[in-house]
Amino acid sequence: MNAPDKLQQLLTLTREPFPQSSKVYVPGAQPGVQVPMREIALTNGETVTVYDTSGPYTDPAADINIRQGLGPVRSQWVAARGDTEHYEGRARMALDDGGKHGDVADARIEALRAEAAGLQRQPLRAKAGANVTQMHYARRGIVTPEMEYIAIRENGKREWMREYLGDAEREARLRGNAMGARIPDVITPEFVRDEVARGRAVIPANINHPEVEPMIIGRNFLVKINANIGNSAVTSSIEEEVEKLVWSIRWGGDTVMDLSTGKNIHTTRDWIIRNSPVPIGTVPIYQALEKVGGVAEDLTWEIFRDTLIEQAEQGVDYFTIHAGVRLPFIHLTTQRRTGIVSRGGSILAKWCITHHKENFLYTHFDEICEIMKAYDVTFSLGDGLRPGSAADANDEAQFAELKTLGELTQIAWKHDVQTMIEGPGHVPMHMIQANMDEQLRHCHEAPFYTLGPLTIDIAPGYDHIASAIGAAMIGWMGTAMLCYVTPKEHLGLPDRDDVKQGIIAYKIAAHAADVAKGHPGQRARDDAMSKARFEFRWRDQFALGLDPQTAEAYHDETLPKDSSKEAHFCSMCGPKFCSMKITQDVRDYAAAKGLSEEQALTEGMAQKSAEFKSVGGEFYVPLDSLKNKG
Amino acid sequence: MNAPDKLQQLLTLTREPFPQSSKVYVPGAQPGVQVPMREIALTNGETVTVYDTSGPYTDPAADINIRQGLGPVRSQWVAARGDTEHYEGRARMALDDGGKHGDVADARIEALRAEAAGLQRQPLRAKAGANVTQMHYARRGIVTPEMEYIAIRENGKREWMREYLGDAEREARLRGNAMGARIPDVITPEFVRDEVARGRAVIPANINHPEVEPMIIGRNFLVKINANIGNSAVTSSIEEEVEKLVWSIRWGGDTVMDLSTGKNIHTTRDWIIRNSPVPIGTVPIYQALEKVGGVAEDLTWEIFRDTLIEQAEQGVDYFTIHAGVRLPFIHLTTQRRTGIVSRGGSILAKWCITHHKENFLYTHFDEICEIMKAYDVTFSLGDGLRPGSAADANDEAQFAELKTLGELTQIAWKHDVQTMIEGPGHVPMHMIQANMDEQLRHCHEAPFYTLGPLTIDIAPGYDHIASAIGAAMIGWMGTAMLCYVTPKEHLGLPDRDDVKQGIIAYKIAAHAADVAKGHPGQRARDDAMSKARFEFRWRDQFALGLDPQTAEAYHDETLPKDSSKEAHFCSMCGPKFCSMKITQDVRDYAAAKGLSEEQALTEGMAQKSAEFKSVGGEFYVPLDSLKNKG
Repeated sequence: MNAPDKLQQLLTLTREPFPQSSKVYVPGAQPGVQVPMREIALTNGETVTVYDTSGPYTDPAADINIRQGLGPVRSQWVAARGDTEHYEGRARMALDDGGKHGDVADARIEALRAEAAGLQRQPLRAKAGANVTQMHYARRGIVTPEMEYIAIRENGKREWMREYLGDAEREARLRGNAMGARIPDVITPEFVRDEVARGRAVIPANINHPEVEPMIIGRNFLVKINANIGNSAVTSSIEEEVEKLVWSIRWGGDTVMDLSTGKNIHTTRDWIIRNSPVPIGTVPIYQALEKVGGVAEDLTWEIFRDTLIEQAEQGVDYFTIHAGVRLPFIHLTTQRRTGIVSRGGSILAKWCITHHKENFLYTHFDEICEIMKAYDVTFSLGDGLRPGSAADANDEAQFAELKTLGELTQIAWKHDVQTMIEGPGHVPMHMIQANMDEQLRHCHEAPFYTLGPLTIDIAPGYDHIASAIGAAMIGWMGTAMLCYVTPKEHLGLPDRDDVKQGIIAYKIAAHAADVAKGHPGQRARDDAMSKARFEFRWRDQFALGLDPQTAEAYHDETLPKDSSKEAHFCSMCGPKFCSMKITQDVRDYAAAKGLSEEQALTEGMAQKSAEFKSVGGEFYVPLDSLKNKG
Repeated sequence: MNAPDKLQQLLTLTREPFPQSSKVYVPGAQPGVQVPMREIALTNGETVTVYDTSGPYTDPAADINIRQGLGPVRSQWVAARGDTEHYEGRARMALDDGGKHGDVADARIEALRAEAAGLQRQPLRAKAGANVTQMHYARRGIVTPEMEYIAIRENGKREWMREYLGDAEREARLRGNAMGARIPDVITPEFVRDEVARGRAVIPANINHPEVEPMIIGRNFLVKINANIGNSAVTSSIEEEVEKLVWSIRWGGDTVMDLSTGKNIHTTRDWIIRNSPVPIGTVPIYQALEKVGGVAEDLTWEIFRDTLIEQAEQGVDYFTIHAGVRLPFIHLTTQRRTGIVSRGGSILAKWCITHHKENFLYTHFDEICEIMKAYDVTFSLGDGLRPGSAADANDEAQFAELKTLGELTQIAWKHDVQTMIEGPGHVPMHMIQANMDEQLRHCHEAPFYTLGPLTIDIAPGYDHIASAIGAAMIGWMGTAMLCYVTPKEHLGLPDRDDVKQGIIAYKIAAHAADVAKGHPGQRARDDAMSKARFEFRWRDQFALGLDPQTAEAYHDETLPKDSSKEAHFCSMCGPKFCSMKITQDVRDYAAAKGLSEEQALTEGMAQKSAEFKSVGGEFYVPLDSLKNKG
């Protein structure tokens, strides 16, 4: 099989719907609001509906041509607001794709661009004096279609969840501990608006990325995860780059960061954004550094500014901006075990000390805000001084920068620019709460977006696990989005399977956080799984899992026959030792006597009252005092 | 390659020392106390010493013949106490190996026994009236060689750790939060004795298991992990069974439970125990059930008692005993989502309701204690009513049983029998603390030994991760031992790689807990790793990791050449973007000017004092208030 064929096959594979699943669209009140969800049809007739990040790719009815891009679901909403205008846009340069200055005719770049001609769009920007951010609308009391879309999406189908959970005792016992979050029972469009207006949530949605299915990041919403992708050393085709994206969102990436460096990154970005239903984030300093040949000290505000506009015109939804790496903080890192480990942070540190000047991102922060609000690009204020080891966790450098990020948040908010705050990194478990507390204190509840954190340093090859522990905890404590870590962290570039492993580990962390916080109904899918387990509905167990194929493959390693999928036992204990089966026997026994099990037992006990009298008083002591104190 | 050859090769592989590692033995004051540790020689001349569970297998100097068993390191200590006697022992029965009653001549069983003739030992028991438990000695003020051994083992080589960590600011910042544990700076033999005397720690060490390298389980010691193994459907050879054990301890299993069922389990157990340097636990009800043909209601106290003696004579170090599954609690499980999920729990529940009688393990608990103290078998009081789903977490049935386990602990302690308490299972994050609190409250600080807990139910295929999150948290909160969960949980039987994946995930959880609790020096290995990262000592990074081979293989996927192992960059960012390199450049820049970096920066800043004046006052505010509040 030659390479293009193989890619085409991969892309077909990633478009395959999940087992027993179909895409449904829930309409909103505003025109064009059609919110996609995944419906899982169980073998017992029940239906489970889950949040779906995979976009049109898993909808067999969707006609997708990746050389034309996805349908622009938001275009009419953006246009209807009447505050934007098409314009010529910045002139393209060979430099944008890593060509040399004046080197417009690089044949390879031209060929790649030509291949993607169908993906070119004329950019939009705010009309003079206008501000097109979702925060700006929110603060003026406007509930945008994006906000309504998000409200429907966050609620999911609460009807089935409520029905499913049902039991009052159980719900009271399992009630979550929101750790200070204020999660309403139902997410209304107005609630979304209010959270965005307060800055407590962001909707990353560049007006030049109309293909995005709106989503929200904030502590009172479901915990989100981000997956990172990057271009290959030799970018071979649109298919290859788009396939990485589709693969990431298939497994649950809520946003994707394109961390490409080197050649062809402008063109690759066109391919990714035009085909992405999830927000795309970038770190613009990477491309700016390419433009100055990799020499940090040659960076200038002008080159950086030009790069921001270039990427904003393409439709990037959020920018990591390391404006908190201030000159006076750099010496605080010299006694560290691992110095500065953020790429962007180290580039800016080098620039600062070479020139003995304050970070130009800090000194030009107001001008950056002007660009952000003309396209509605969201800030992801980078933690360039985050710890790169447990040894450096929560140190003076880290918290000095965090405090600065809080100050910058206030400036961004003056411009009505949406803002989130990046966080570590490497933090032992007992120091995680302090990270959340300090972030809330200094950054005024702007959404926290952390990388892990890794709880230990001695697990290379397994850092997705070492960090999923920290991620679940900090997610519970209030972090709004978790940036994944793959098994290759600290070792090499993740391949396709590493990306999947990282995403699944982070879906686990995020869901564990949602359940612990008590997001209404989020436990229902777990409950449906448990019921399927008790009733030996194997196919339903696979379908309800985060990775149905792997679950089924593991099951089949021991019991491959189709008949085993209906068997009332499994390979772990076998039929004789099956506790679930024995429990059912207990229930059947009671039923055969025409009694509830409790009655049957009580009756049995009554017959033997003398025997039980000595202890009887003890058993029915109300155990309320023992229950969930969480 | 034929099967025996392949097994022989596997066994050779598992005996291979870890890279850059050698076994060292630290002597104690009492005769025969030689505590094994693993010493990792780094390429920069430093030496890192780590806790080593792998036994003599990773010592190339050890002469091991698995048909004769390991050397009996404890024999002289047991003999010296003068309170035991050899005796004929229980007569063997075909039933012990799953043969039919009277079926002594089963040819296959005989063949297997013959193969292991070199592993037969005459059993020891306490002399009439004697009590040979470590708790009994501890309460009489005796510091046994086992206790001294453990003190040395738990301390490790604190000298290098202290030297390594050094920096006072860092140590103050990272000081752990012991969550109520009282961890001394140095573990003395007397401290070990005192903890065992109080029942706060156990030393599972049957007098018939002299091969064991003593270890301790308790909240004031390092967090331990258990791995489960079981016999194959068709047990083919001693090599196969022993290899599973050796594989488990290689990756860090502190104890191993043999959960074999079916045929040949008595003989297999001989093979395992005689070759095991770690304590072996079992669930005797499994074998008892085999003896009554799998019919739970046919179980009797006499058959169970006989099985306890059979296994105690073989040298099993701890028994899971489900004495808390009381008749009056069973109806509390009927409204559960997943009923009773413990195999032992469901067997006993069925027995109880069929006979309308109280659990015979509960009614005969004192007699069980008499057996335990004659061999020093430790109780692991089973949680037969543990939740099998998040929906059932922390319910009345679970906590009623827990309270009973606390009462039984008091009875066991009257007999000076060592006791630990098993715990769940499935618990969402926000309900974990309540589990620990209730256990501490009702079980008087007897060590807690939990299975996970799994924090969510929707991750079949990845339950090692879903549960490592819960395990790390409950380990930090005070759980003394974590029973691993493999990726195959809920799906099938773990294979060799699943066992490894489960163990590594749990080593991560346990180490994360140790670091968070602030066990003195436990961070040092992480710190050594971080230093190796900053200095691009790739080989040292691999050697310091939990799984050196995997780390190296991942690294080599992108940069396979040997020269890359010395490269001052890696594949993730490449040389141009390397933050570590840039940080070094910063330091070099300062050095070239003959200044410390801080001075260089300060000087630079002084030159630009006017520029910085406006903000200067802010930077040197002491940030103590921001630091670790953990």
